[in-house]
Amino acid sequence: MVQVAVIGAAGYAGVEAVRWTLAHPRFELACITSAADAGRSLSTLYPGLAGATDLAFVAPNADIIAEQASVAFLAVPHTAAMELVPELLSRGVTVLDMSADFRLTDPDVYEHWYGVPHTAPDLLGEAVYGLPEVDRGRLPGARLVAVPGCYPTATTLAALPALESGVATGTRVVVDAKSGVSGAGRSLSATTHYVAVTESIKAYQVGTHRHTPEMEQTLSGIAGRELSVMFVPHLVPMSRGLLSTVYLELADPMTTAEAVELYRMRYADEPFVHVHEAGVMPSTGEVRGTNRAHIGVAVDGRTGTLVATCAIDNLGKGSAGQAMQCANAVFGFAETEGLERSGAVV
Amino acid sequence: MVQVAVIGAAGYAGVEAVRWTLAHPRFELACITSAADAGRSLSTLYPGLAGATDLAFVAPNADIIAEQASVAFLAVPHTAAMELVPELLSRGVTVLDMSADFRLTDPDVYEHWYGVPHTAPDLLGEAVYGLPEVDRGRLPGARLVAVPGCYPTATTLAALPALESGVATGTRVVVDAKSGVSGAGRSLSATTHYVAVTESIKAYQVGTHRHTPEMEQTLSGIAGRELSVMFVPHLVPMSRGLLSTVYLELADPMTTAEAVELYRMRYADEPFVHVHEAGVMPSTGEVRGTNRAHIGVAVDGRTGTLVATCAIDNLGKGSAGQAMQCANAVFGFAETEGLERSGAVV
Amino acid sequence: MVQVAVIGAAGYAGVEAVRWTLAHPRFELACITSAADAGRSLSTLYPGLAGATDLAFVAPNADIIAEQASVAFLAVPHTAAMELVPELLSRGVTVLDMSADFRLTDPDVYEHWYGVPHTAPDLLGEAVYGLPEVDRGRLPGARLVAVPGCYPTATTLAALPALESGVATGTRVVVDAKSGVSGAGRSLSATTHYVAVTESIKAYQVGTHRHTPEMEQTLSGIAGRELSVMFVPHLVPMSRGLLSTVYLELADPMTTAEAVELYRMRYADEPFVHVHEAGVMPSTGEVRGTNRAHIGVAVDGRTGTLVATCAIDNLGKGSAGQAMQCANAVFGFAETEGLERSGAVV
Amino acid sequence: MVQVAVIGAAGYAGVEAVRWTLAHPRFELACITSAADAGRSLSTLYPGLAGATDLAFVAPNADIIAEQASVAFLAVPHTAAMELVPELLSRGVTVLDMSADFRLTDPDVYEHWYGVPHTAPDLLGEAVYGLPEVDRGRLPGARLVAVPGCYPTATTLAALPALESGVATGTRVVVDAKSGVSGAGRSLSATTHYVAVTESIKAYQVGTHRHTPEMEQTLSGIAGRELSVMFVPHLVPMSRGLLSTVYLELADPMTTAEAVELYRMRYADEPFVHVHEAGVMPSTGEVRGTNRAHIGVAVDGRTGTLVATCAIDNLGKGSAGQAMQCANAVFGFAETEGLERSGAVV
Repeated sequence: MVQVAVIGAAGYAGVEAVRWTLAHPRFELACITSAADAGRSLSTLYPGLAGATDLAFVAPNADIIAEQASVAFLAVPHTAAMELVPELLSRGVTVLDMSADFRLTDPDVYEHWYGVPHTAPDLLGEAVYGLPEVDRGRLPGARLVAVPGCYPTATTLAALPALESGVATGTRVVVDAKSGVSGAGRSLSATTHYVAVTESIKAYQVGTHRHTPEMEQTLSGIAGRELSVMFVPHLVPMSRGLLSTVYLELADPMTTAEAVELYRMRYADEPFVHVHEAGVMPSTGEVRGTNRAHIGVAVDGRTGTLVATCAIDNLGKGSAGQAMQCANAVFGFAETEGLERSGAVV
Repeated sequence: MVQVAVIGAAGYAGVEAVRWTLAHPRFELACITSAADAGRSLSTLYPGLAGATDLAFVAPNADIIAEQASVAFLAVPHTAAMELVPELLSRGVTVLDMSADFRLTDPDVYEHWYGVPHTAPDLLGEAVYGLPEVDRGRLPGARLVAVPGCYPTATTLAALPALESGVATGTRVVVDAKSGVSGAGRSLSATTHYVAVTESIKAYQVGTHRHTPEMEQTLSGIAGRELSVMFVPHLVPMSRGLLSTVYLELADPMTTAEAVELYRMRYADEPFVHVHEAGVMPSTGEVRGTNRAHIGVAVDGRTGTLVATCAIDNLGKGSAGQAMQCANAVFGFAETEGLERSGAVV
Repeated sequence: MVQVAVIGAAGYAGVEAVRWTLAHPRFELACITSAADAGRSLSTLYPGLAGATDLAFVAPNADIIAEQASVAFLAVPHTAAMELVPELLSRGVTVLDMSADFRLTDPDVYEHWYGVPHTAPDLLGEAVYGLPEVDRGRLPGARLVAVPGCYPTATTLAALPALESGVATGTRVVVDAKSGVSGAGRSLSATTHYVAVTESIKAYQVGTHRHTPEMEQTLSGIAGRELSVMFVPHLVPMSRGLLSTVYLELADPMTTAEAVELYRMRYADEPFVHVHEAGVMPSTGEVRGTNRAHIGVAVDGRTGTLVATCAIDNLGKGSAGQAMQCANAVFGFAETEGLERSGAVV
Repeated sequence: MVQVAVIGAAGYAGVEAVRWTLAHPRFELACITSAADAGRSLSTLYPGLAGATDLAFVAPNADIIAEQASVAFLAVPHTAAMELVPELLSRGVTVLDMSADFRLTDPDVYEHWYGVPHTAPDLLGEAVYGLPEVDRGRLPGARLVAVPGCYPTATTLAALPALESGVATGTRVVVDAKSGVSGAGRSLSATTHYVAVTESIKAYQVGTHRHTPEMEQTLSGIAGRELSVMFVPHLVPMSRGLLSTVYLELADPMTTAEAVELYRMRYADEPFVHVHEAGVMPSTGEVRGTNRAHIGVAVDGRTGTLVATCAIDNLGKGSAGQAMQCANAVFGFAETEGLERSGAVV
């Protein structure tokens, strides 16, 4: 059993990493950290885990983590990750980083969007971007995996076959995405109060969301040309779930059936990606609690547009599930290990 | 007091027209019809209206309606409206039609999208499209008002200042819209079951929704050139509310501040339209239960895009509220008469 | 027009009092206070009120309030109210207090449940308990009205006819109540985060909720004997709404039809109370946004129990709506003035 | 691997049994039936199960079921079960019946509450009531298990330690329970439409719900005396989850701490039951998607009442999860087999 530490385990992505670790046949939960909750038991914060583990939170400390675990799932805010990662790597701990700190390859782009200089730029070259469906080749044996953001994951999976194959042309991609509230984290704010969220939808951070450069980097890499992304995220009254609706200009006319076939061929061997038949679009509810990505594709001949929507659970394939999938690949396990089981289907 | 009939009063738009009529100082509810519920009291179906009226549903019949009312709000499905409207007009009843039957000026376009020939094409020229913010000139004294669809209303208000002023260029407009469940009506289906809707979002009728040609007709008229609309509606877990996110290509660079100013100038005299300051986007919750439209605008300089989002209540400004606003204009009342009061703000 | 101040207008009950005041034909909003938000406009916090008023929040100050208004709706926490009320009364301002500070007639009971001594016990005798359906006799001309709590309002209306008539016997009343989240106020806490609330229900403060002695005081007064209340509140995933399910032991067998008749007779002249026919129970949704109370009654012959459920909007009849109803009575207006209009019915 | 058939697999409890079976290490899904959906694939109805199985629905037929499976989970309506069960038993198929048909030991009580005579009364003696926490003794090797109803499960677990130990006295038990919408099943009705459910709560079937006699039978058996149950179920805006709040009269004073200790002792060896510490009450969210029951206990000394609330997932411990737990016991597996994993904890 590989010993696991979850850093920042009190947050939503952190506790989700805990949940997946507890269910995994080859990983064993050894350490959970939370600066704010040190000393408290996990089930005090998450009573649903009563009886699942006796572990209590400890304050994060690289020495202690390295003593107890050989792999760490990092669920800490950006900037905190780039401080901790070098300490963990130097102590031989493999890191699955769910923060944004090692996703962008260019430290200048990082500084532009995050407003602070990158303090570990030397590690950017080593960090492997953890989206197995795009490139799983560098994952085995990796020391540091930058787990993609939730919006980039759904958007990339929605756009990948069309961009990679060249059926999509143009240089501007419109991405209209919708996320549940857990994407904003567990900290309290007026915008996450139940009364502010329920029965209402709104856009936020139009054109300024920090996942934008990550999408541009990944989509440009796939397309082999510079793409700009017009990205508008929305907040939806649901606790989990993320849907990305991507609008791609078609180079040449094609039918929806052809587009579905293109997508199904591309994802034929992917255990966590499902492409719906023509006419069916995925709901976020159907992937809730899982590491799955469900995709629907439609071609609008009138406007020459291919529309792809991808539904994921922002805490599953959009975060902790994907981190676990990557960890499986890093350690040479089947990527599906510990992740097969579906969430509730109703 | 002008006597009012609400036809199809058992449905969501119908009962909303009833509610606004009951609160109106110059309209008086005289007749409510429902083929399926004839004989039942209104409060049997909507206990929230207990004590508000003693009226019971009657079966729809043009003679009876004309006897009791001089104006009718039609909340019946498309095709039913084009059967009933000539009968009502010939009996001298003014009609506010909330169905789609008289919105499209070209009967061929109607037949293409609705799959049946139009049976009253001679009335299409007379019907006034009831979006006062675009053109209220023909409303006073009109016999037949085609109240716009919910998606076209929010989309048009979001795009209007940019298209009319010429700051938006291009021929393809991307419209990504999100609606609450009441937009699908009160009839039962697997897709409106609570368990299917809650905590989930999905796209539907991608590129094929029947509001598409209505948007193209209206936006093209405003822009003075042929526009095609790439329209993707989504179903959101909320009972009411509609948000349209519209992506417009900019002819020349402009700032968000300039865009906000453009929008505020255009809507300065509109009693029901509010444009948020730069950086603030509207939520559907803030217009719930009202006839208001709240708009946010942002310019993304990187991609040369103006993004406008418009939030309405699909049963308010998106249907019965707008019908009442038009009725006020038809009868020479202030457009705000009976519509001033805000819905609940929490 | 009577000039109105709303003290604590940034909170949920406060802004609801603002909304009702803005819609009232005889009250005029003159002053809104909020210590934390002084200087900000109302619509910054509540964009749904954009255009409704130009007022900005001011810091609460008795002199300023008294200068601008002759009546004040107090929506401040307990203990804050008993400090402010004497200052307002001494300046001639009529007070509708929505806090708990003047509801209990016995200062020792107050100290026992609220943990602090009462600092204005001399006013307890003057304060009029503002539940018009129980006793509206002392309201006209009152200087200080203690507006009842949300749980006591729904519970009292559910139990009143059975206790007053003597059909209910016994000394212990079981009250199982369910409230929406706005009842907990606008301040942030882990228990009001959307993710913690949605799709979940739980009990809280079992047997220890501070509304318990208020219910015992009121119900005992109605019954003419000492009653103890076993009260369990629950938190329900809804923003507004409150349902109280009350279990009363029957002295003698009676039918549900007889119980309904008893309730209908008792409330025949009450404009805001509706008793459903036998077999129909009220939902909180049907009274959302209104000042109404809808009641259902059933007799369970097997256990000799009369069950009454009462649905209100906790911010309507449970708080600001009731305060406005009382204010109408205080000033000699019809109790329904400004409160007639139903909220949205869907 | 034991071959499993799920009868009525298109419904909520049915598909939940499918999900648990697919995740089970010793059961293998061999057959799924649905009269209405024969020929369709499972994932057409439940896209969340895309890729999980290739099985399509077949029409229910005892011969075909017996050919393919040695155990059947029955998720069919009452009366349908008592027709099918004898056919399955005679063909050697073990039955876990999630319907109500074999829960009541007295066929007259069945006829009284269900309105039809029991057609297989001879099997009532053989049927084992499947609540392992009360009596697991007869489960190993049983041919027919009557899986308890969702309300009786939560209510019994809430009341069991207090009744069994004799600390609760009296003959009338008040049970105020709250259920999510999936409890009403997948069939369409006006009361399960999203718009009717969201943001609203109401009581239904006050004193007349068919789970009442099942509770009385089980609680009386535990207490060793005749108990009557005053039962009021409520519909809550959530898809899954059930909370039962039970009011028990105390024979003698005790503290909450003592009550918690009593409950913890009783359930010390139960793998699926957790008793919260004093002052903490369970939420249904914390057990969503699991087979767990979380209990909170409080003593109200003022009224001499012990209040216990029990939270379960109505489709988990309240139905298919419990059926699987019983199946494990029947076949001699550990009761936790295939049920260990927690659902999502956020």
